[in-house]
Amino acid sequence: MAGNSYGTLFKLTTFGESHGAALGGIIDGCPAGIAIDFEAIKAEMQRRKPGQSKIVTQRKEEDEIQFLSGIFEGKTTGTPIGFIIPNTNQKSDDYSDLQTTYRPSHADYVYEQKYGLRDYRGGGRSSARETACRVAAGAIAKQVLKNISIHAFVSSVGDIFIDKPYQNLDFSLTESNAVRCPDPETAQKMENFIMEVRKSGDTVGGTVTCVIQNVPIGLGEPVFDKLHAELGKAMLSINAVKGFEYGSGFCGARMKGSAHNDLYNEDGTTKTNLSGGIQGGISNGMDIYFRVAFKPVATLLQKQEILTNQNTIITQQGKGRHDPCVVPRAVPIVEAMAAIVLADFYLRNKIYQ
Amino acid sequence: MAGNSYGTLFKLTTFGESHGAALGGIIDGCPAGIAIDFEAIKAEMQRRKPGQSKIVTQRKEEDEIQFLSGIFEGKTTGTPIGFIIPNTNQKSDDYSDLQTTYRPSHADYVYEQKYGLRDYRGGGRSSARETACRVAAGAIAKQVLKNISIHAFVSSVGDIFIDKPYQNLDFSLTESNAVRCPDPETAQKMENFIMEVRKSGDTVGGTVTCVIQNVPIGLGEPVFDKLHAELGKAMLSINAVKGFEYGSGFCGARMKGSAHNDLYNEDGTTKTNLSGGIQGGISNGMDIYFRVAFKPVATLLQKQEILTNQNTIITQQGKGRHDPCVVPRAVPIVEAMAAIVLADFYLRNKIYQ
Amino acid sequence: MAGNSYGTLFKLTTFGESHGAALGGIIDGCPAGIAIDFEAIKAEMQRRKPGQSKIVTQRKEEDEIQFLSGIFEGKTTGTPIGFIIPNTNQKSDDYSDLQTTYRPSHADYVYEQKYGLRDYRGGGRSSARETACRVAAGAIAKQVLKNISIHAFVSSVGDIFIDKPYQNLDFSLTESNAVRCPDPETAQKMENFIMEVRKSGDTVGGTVTCVIQNVPIGLGEPVFDKLHAELGKAMLSINAVKGFEYGSGFCGARMKGSAHNDLYNEDGTTKTNLSGGIQGGISNGMDIYFRVAFKPVATLLQKQEILTNQNTIITQQGKGRHDPCVVPRAVPIVEAMAAIVLADFYLRNKIYQ
Amino acid sequence: MAGNSYGTLFKLTTFGESHGAALGGIIDGCPAGIAIDFEAIKAEMQRRKPGQSKIVTQRKEEDEIQFLSGIFEGKTTGTPIGFIIPNTNQKSDDYSDLQTTYRPSHADYVYEQKYGLRDYRGGGRSSARETACRVAAGAIAKQVLKNISIHAFVSSVGDIFIDKPYQNLDFSLTESNAVRCPDPETAQKMENFIMEVRKSGDTVGGTVTCVIQNVPIGLGEPVFDKLHAELGKAMLSINAVKGFEYGSGFCGARMKGSAHNDLYNEDGTTKTNLSGGIQGGISNGMDIYFRVAFKPVATLLQKQEILTNQNTIITQQGKGRHDPCVVPRAVPIVEAMAAIVLADFYLRNKIYQ
Repeated sequence: MAGNSYGTLFKLTTFGESHGAALGGIIDGCPAGIAIDFEAIKAEMQRRKPGQSKIVTQRKEEDEIQFLSGIFEGKTTGTPIGFIIPNTNQKSDDYSDLQTTYRPSHADYVYEQKYGLRDYRGGGRSSARETACRVAAGAIAKQVLKNISIHAFVSSVGDIFIDKPYQNLDFSLTESNAVRCPDPETAQKMENFIMEVRKSGDTVGGTVTCVIQNVPIGLGEPVFDKLHAELGKAMLSINAVKGFEYGSGFCGARMKGSAHNDLYNEDGTTKTNLSGGIQGGISNGMDIYFRVAFKPVATLLQKQEILTNQNTIITQQGKGRHDPCVVPRAVPIVEAMAAIVLADFYLRNKIYQ
Repeated sequence: MAGNSYGTLFKLTTFGESHGAALGGIIDGCPAGIAIDFEAIKAEMQRRKPGQSKIVTQRKEEDEIQFLSGIFEGKTTGTPIGFIIPNTNQKSDDYSDLQTTYRPSHADYVYEQKYGLRDYRGGGRSSARETACRVAAGAIAKQVLKNISIHAFVSSVGDIFIDKPYQNLDFSLTESNAVRCPDPETAQKMENFIMEVRKSGDTVGGTVTCVIQNVPIGLGEPVFDKLHAELGKAMLSINAVKGFEYGSGFCGARMKGSAHNDLYNEDGTTKTNLSGGIQGGISNGMDIYFRVAFKPVATLLQKQEILTNQNTIITQQGKGRHDPCVVPRAVPIVEAMAAIVLADFYLRNKIYQ
Repeated sequence: MAGNSYGTLFKLTTFGESHGAALGGIIDGCPAGIAIDFEAIKAEMQRRKPGQSKIVTQRKEEDEIQFLSGIFEGKTTGTPIGFIIPNTNQKSDDYSDLQTTYRPSHADYVYEQKYGLRDYRGGGRSSARETACRVAAGAIAKQVLKNISIHAFVSSVGDIFIDKPYQNLDFSLTESNAVRCPDPETAQKMENFIMEVRKSGDTVGGTVTCVIQNVPIGLGEPVFDKLHAELGKAMLSINAVKGFEYGSGFCGARMKGSAHNDLYNEDGTTKTNLSGGIQGGISNGMDIYFRVAFKPVATLLQKQEILTNQNTIITQQGKGRHDPCVVPRAVPIVEAMAAIVLADFYLRNKIYQ
Repeated sequence: MAGNSYGTLFKLTTFGESHGAALGGIIDGCPAGIAIDFEAIKAEMQRRKPGQSKIVTQRKEEDEIQFLSGIFEGKTTGTPIGFIIPNTNQKSDDYSDLQTTYRPSHADYVYEQKYGLRDYRGGGRSSARETACRVAAGAIAKQVLKNISIHAFVSSVGDIFIDKPYQNLDFSLTESNAVRCPDPETAQKMENFIMEVRKSGDTVGGTVTCVIQNVPIGLGEPVFDKLHAELGKAMLSINAVKGFEYGSGFCGARMKGSAHNDLYNEDGTTKTNLSGGIQGGISNGMDIYFRVAFKPVATLLQKQEILTNQNTIITQQGKGRHDPCVVPRAVPIVEAMAAIVLADFYLRNKIYQ
């Protein structure tokens, strides 16, 4: 109830603050007998970790994951998978001035108001460091969903957008550049822009698009737990997300029905896919695709007005090691949450079989 | 788990098909001692019901709600509130040709694939008629949230948008026109456009914006049950919704941090509100506002290709009484789901008090 | 959260007070495609209803159940099954003196303390009339569990016990007498005793034993949701229940391990079954059996001291139509709750298949 | 859903096998601002740990608990409390012969049947070692419930019973002897008996009684989540438990209503307390008391027939370090689960306040 769990049958519960001893989580409900590919998990963790390229934060964190239970002789046993990710690069001193101040557009103020106190070091529980646990669980969820492929990529940074439909992109190029944009030309522009933004001590937002292919028909539970409603919640639960749309999305709201309807082929597939692979909350076997909006990171390396716990406004110079643009590192997080949602619906759908 | 419940402490579970005996639901967890205003509930039901104006479906359904439990001598007792809404205007014969066909961009096909069979009459469980139960529960949720005001309105139809910030609108005008747009001039344009679309047997999409005011600080549960994540799920669970954004939304993804950060006043309020009243998933006391995209209604009064259960494509002329544009009737549904989400978080926040 | 739901995948939520318009419920998660035997449901309702024999309450209530959704052309559709049981024999006037008094060993006092008000008519929500909804849902759960047989019976009334192991009983005789005791000789003694107790205006307790046969191996979810733990909760949630034991039960606590261990046969069955068909919370394929203790009904047709809401003690003569002994009517309720628990675990176990 | 969580608002999720790297858990929903007494937690862990006296297993395990999150500067922050208990005394070799055999009245066989594989070392997930996490969480729950006192004690071993009502016992004596029986004379008899049983390589069962005092009126959620139903489930989820009764329990089933009803005093307290402090599933402010039956430990230091995975029966001599009687070490586990249940209902009751 306190909001640290996601999923119903495939269920992740996480704990951990930015500067505590460790983060970690429990995956409950993972089916038994799955041979775990630890290298694949490690690879996902690497994609999210700080310091991996010049356009992300230069903090060094190893994000080494330790599995403590639920896997025996390389296979899942059906019992809960507990894991921890020790915090090894804590510099709590960096944050001592946060003890009495609330940074704009951060969660400092509301945490203190809600709970009466807060772990102020590095944002505490509200730090995006928490998403490391999601990536770990998502990597396992992907292994549950053997035949389903999930590809996320950066589709825009600031005003620089990929101007092609996803069908014209080669997802194998996503990891070929630091931005994680599968269109190399656009990627270069984005990277240049991010470097420029970084130099000015500023940050910039962007969007991540995710395409899920080879989904069986029937995933999703009407009426409240529609597949896209859970995907939306999952994405909106990621730090810095401001919006979610799937299929035709906000553009669809401008269209007429005669243009928007997806006519059928005789085999039940559709000629167009403005529905985004989901009808009435249930997957129809076509590609699922959606887009997630991330705001610019709130921590600036500029002078900025901040609030103190004495109700005064002071000016402070931002410092530390922060991302100038969050979307490149958000790509594996979006994929992870998508995988968790799908693994859950995959298991929930077994009732009907 | 089967997806027919919403909320954790203030919890709505619904049942009912479009053409069964009745729809209904159970509200569990409503606090005791609330004097119920039945007229207010009736008024909300009226806002959603078909046949209320010339720009919505001309079906006549009374949507009379009967409360069966949980209210004694006018007050809630803390026990579950059961209610039913009888289906009185069923014309199942209208739907006999749906028995063997699957309409494009409807849920007919996926329901049959998922469950092996379906109640084909009027869409069965996938009918938007189900939202009547949400409006009923939302009307009670609003009474739990005495001091919080929730105003939704139509902010666009097709390409016709309100071009003012919500602060410049007079919400008391929302109900003054059939479109439920509080800007009278724009409302007239929208209405004309909808009438035109209807004449051509077509439909059109639109957006609903919702503004929630006077929210106490502290609602929302990090990390997965962020306030905006639940609002997003709640909205995306409404029929025909394709997207959700709050605060700066998708525009925020194009901005720089120096422009996006909401600087504080000394009293903890903020000078701007691109955050949309939510920081780190927790309400900060500023206005919450969000926008919901609705696709055009899939049922057209035109000739259209449809799939049969013999895997053939046939051409069929759409008929019946359907909405040319769903957004005017969606306004009370958006408000209802927002109220249910807030009532739930209001109760969940009591743990910390 | 407010406690009116049972189960996780096969989930019953109920509503209704003793003297409101109706009781009812929603069964969510029932698999699709089950041909419903309505006569079987009716038969279960008959077993629970008042007025069925001379040793139970002489109140006449028809307990007619109306299904409102989730069943189409005789089969479940996978959507929620809503149902109501109208209250047709309400004599609220009988209860007007309860408005200001709290009966001993009833829930009157605690409901008013907890909620600040209560529906005092006939016990309101705390009335055992609520169990009618459980029997309805249990009758459907039994139809989900086609091959599993569930037999409950009265094993003691006061100090009169069946002195045979259940293996020596013929369950087909349970319904042959008013007490629902499959041992005819003991049944006669019990019936005589209940009639005697009734004459004196008193009541008496008893136990119900339940035997579940042909359970597949593997039902139950360690560690907290052990099969017997959920059976225990389900039974203890029935009105008037004071205790639960399974397998060797409280007797087992007096035994030595060398006598208590169930040695295996080569096929994985066991030579004895002190385990009661459950090992480590998981069914092992042997018979599951358990015993449930019911206290004597608190409503006496005698003079008794009661508390008023003015904090005085007054003497009142009990009146009305009440059960002198609850166990004969509890038999179908015990079976219903057992069926609901098993149906839920049956579905939950599908994850592993 | 997979059964490794307990509670709704105060929620414990655990992981860990007997011989994995560590056990651990997450407490989600613990209120913020509670100053944690770490010594009190350590003391509870000491009460449960092996090797603490001559009548329990002589295994040495330190059961050192490490808190990883949710506590900052000595106080809870409202974020999830993650903890681990490393397994430091693993002797997996002891268990290599379990790889191909199933011990009688253990969970070996059903785990392998349910999941298709199992961690056979020391019982894996089915080991009572898992209860260490419960004791840790219970110790924190006790600190949430400042004014409520919870006292469990051994009330019988084999056929040796305390023959006094709990009101005549001095709970401060419970920890004065190895058996944890507050009646010194009976304690001595029990201890002698357990030593005798141990010498013969056998084991014996027993019961634990728990008394909860100073409970506020109003805890418990009708109808399915009655306070005693959750207490029952919590106790039955502990390894080796076969039965649960509260208040008059199974004895109550033999009584007449005229003797069983608890008459009121003018202040709402009752003259007797056969109800066991709970009416209609809600606490009434009187003492809550219940009794839990534990079977004899299944691991014997005798020759015994066991099943192999080749479907043969072989004879094996039991070995290792096991408890001859589980109830002394079960006392803190019973208290812990009671505390977890009460903390949850305490928070759930805040909705009504």
